[in-house]
Amino acid sequence: MSDSPRPILLTMGDAAGIGPEILVAAFQRGQARGCVVVGDPAVLRRAAAVLGGVRPIVAVIGQRGALAEVPPGCLPVCPPPGLPDGLAALPWGRVDARCGAAALRCIEAAVGWVRAGVAGAIVTAPVHKEALAAAGSRFPGHTEMLQALASDAAEPPPVRMMLANEQLRVVLATIHVGLREAIESLDFNVVLQTIRIAHHAAAGWGQPRPRIAVAGLNPHAGEGGLFGDEEQRYIGPAVLAARAEGIDASGPHAPDTVFMRARHDPPGHPGEFDIVVAMTHDHGLIPVKYLGVEQGVNVTLGLPFVRTSPDHGTAFDIAGRGVADPASLMAAIGTARRMLAAAG
Amino acid sequence: MSDSPRPILLTMGDAAGIGPEILVAAFQRGQARGCVVVGDPAVLRRAAAVLGGVRPIVAVIGQRGALAEVPPGCLPVCPPPGLPDGLAALPWGRVDARCGAAALRCIEAAVGWVRAGVAGAIVTAPVHKEALAAAGSRFPGHTEMLQALASDAAEPPPVRMMLANEQLRVVLATIHVGLREAIESLDFNVVLQTIRIAHHAAAGWGQPRPRIAVAGLNPHAGEGGLFGDEEQRYIGPAVLAARAEGIDASGPHAPDTVFMRARHDPPGHPGEFDIVVAMTHDHGLIPVKYLGVEQGVNVTLGLPFVRTSPDHGTAFDIAGRGVADPASLMAAIGTARRMLAAAG
Repeated sequence: MSDSPRPILLTMGDAAGIGPEILVAAFQRGQARGCVVVGDPAVLRRAAAVLGGVRPIVAVIGQRGALAEVPPGCLPVCPPPGLPDGLAALPWGRVDARCGAAALRCIEAAVGWVRAGVAGAIVTAPVHKEALAAAGSRFPGHTEMLQALASDAAEPPPVRMMLANEQLRVVLATIHVGLREAIESLDFNVVLQTIRIAHHAAAGWGQPRPRIAVAGLNPHAGEGGLFGDEEQRYIGPAVLAARAEGIDASGPHAPDTVFMRARHDPPGHPGEFDIVVAMTHDHGLIPVKYLGVEQGVNVTLGLPFVRTSPDHGTAFDIAGRGVADPASLMAAIGTARRMLAAAG
Repeated sequence: MSDSPRPILLTMGDAAGIGPEILVAAFQRGQARGCVVVGDPAVLRRAAAVLGGVRPIVAVIGQRGALAEVPPGCLPVCPPPGLPDGLAALPWGRVDARCGAAALRCIEAAVGWVRAGVAGAIVTAPVHKEALAAAGSRFPGHTEMLQALASDAAEPPPVRMMLANEQLRVVLATIHVGLREAIESLDFNVVLQTIRIAHHAAAGWGQPRPRIAVAGLNPHAGEGGLFGDEEQRYIGPAVLAARAEGIDASGPHAPDTVFMRARHDPPGHPGEFDIVVAMTHDHGLIPVKYLGVEQGVNVTLGLPFVRTSPDHGTAFDIAGRGVADPASLMAAIGTARRMLAAAG
């Protein structure tokens, strides 16, 4: 048997991007034990041919003991139903509707297996927004897609994107919309819900009472109303409401210094906070990415299952050359493994 | 004579904050040669009493050879006209209109001396916004005040705030306004003018043709119009217009990765760009401050003289205790000295 009784599913991502080869590279480095790739075996074989030393074999998900029978050096790959033909013959680094469709099939199947209880967590390799759109997807990214697939309820569960590395954990109140629209969409409920989701999710990585810093929206967190009133109108009240629920939230803090204060870099700089809630995509992602994207992990909070992903895209410019760095993917697998273990 | 034929003026800042003591500390460390403090000698004497080893003496600005006659261990302090009485008896760490008025007098006098050609540059110690307001000032900060004082023209010169440390130089298109208002105030001219000011100012630190990266406003720089159209409407066109003028500008780049790409941390990470133009206060300041504010320097670009300042505030909570770190002030003096030398 593997480390975990239920496997972690690794979705292949866009077949023309670096997804397949970083999956093979992570496996080569011994970082994908207990994992099954959800993808096209031929695509994984092509990636293995670039890197060498790994043999992708067709595997089945949900069959007791199946993973234990995987021979050494073999990467189990489970093809989802409905994969387009001929993916492994498509050129690297090009937008193709078939790659988008295949990426979608992999994600749908993975969510189905996790919801059925035969797999424990999903780690997603990068998809390409244009390829998804060419395949008719209405989702701008993984997060929105997983939210829609996560339940059959008419109202999908509220989810939030967290970006994390060794120094910083940031949960975003808004993500893939223009900045004007992001500001319009913020209100008391959005902020309070973000704080709640962050608080409850932290138990999943072993922190039942995280210290949550809530960043303001405006320079100097509004400077007492001089530079915008969103802090006074709803961000501050949402922090107070969260505190009244027993959550260790503080703020609103000035955006330009709260990430520095939260940065955990011992022994010289232990972080003041465990999580920063950021109002906008770039307030949150600029500091997470500033020191490099190699260790960054994207975690979707609020889903009924564990989902992580690397903090980078398909990197079409280097796909198929065997030079892509699997570090962020390996960090994402490690985070999923720890969250799964903490969840028991 | 001093290093520079014309002295660098160090304005005292808020007398109740850490300004006076970091000025004394910088002098103690040999980092204020060729400088004259514009301030209240009694306030500097109080700060020197906290730290020891430095004797503030009254000096005159504009008198040939006067600085050469300053005895060793003595800090030259020139009181501006119109200082309120009794400043040195006010408590540390409290907002007081007299401290605000004194800070204003020091800045006005310093600008007057620089405009008269008897001093070369201004380095400003921190002021307190509330104390300035209590003293009747209409300026939210140094930058706006210096802009208004810099010339007698009805239309003040366009200026921009640059924040810089060893790794990153960021020039801001907008500063002390709410985020909504900042977005409203951006247009083709504001962006192009910011790029031009950054380009021309770089000669002042010895970089006649800087590589300027222009950050977008929206996530992923608008993702081709999907997440906002400001990049297409005016940021991209402003970059093209700047290039047509011979400026090495590129972008709009995704805000979340452009600072990481520009970060200069050799040998592992030489920066791709020399300057990043950021659309908002916090897009630009979050990465500059992320690794700590000790080395950050604020430079006002576009003024007819050199002006720098430390990248922190009055720190009322620790004022008068002799523990404030003068590193950012010393970095600001060093930057002013280099810019003055480059200007010839």
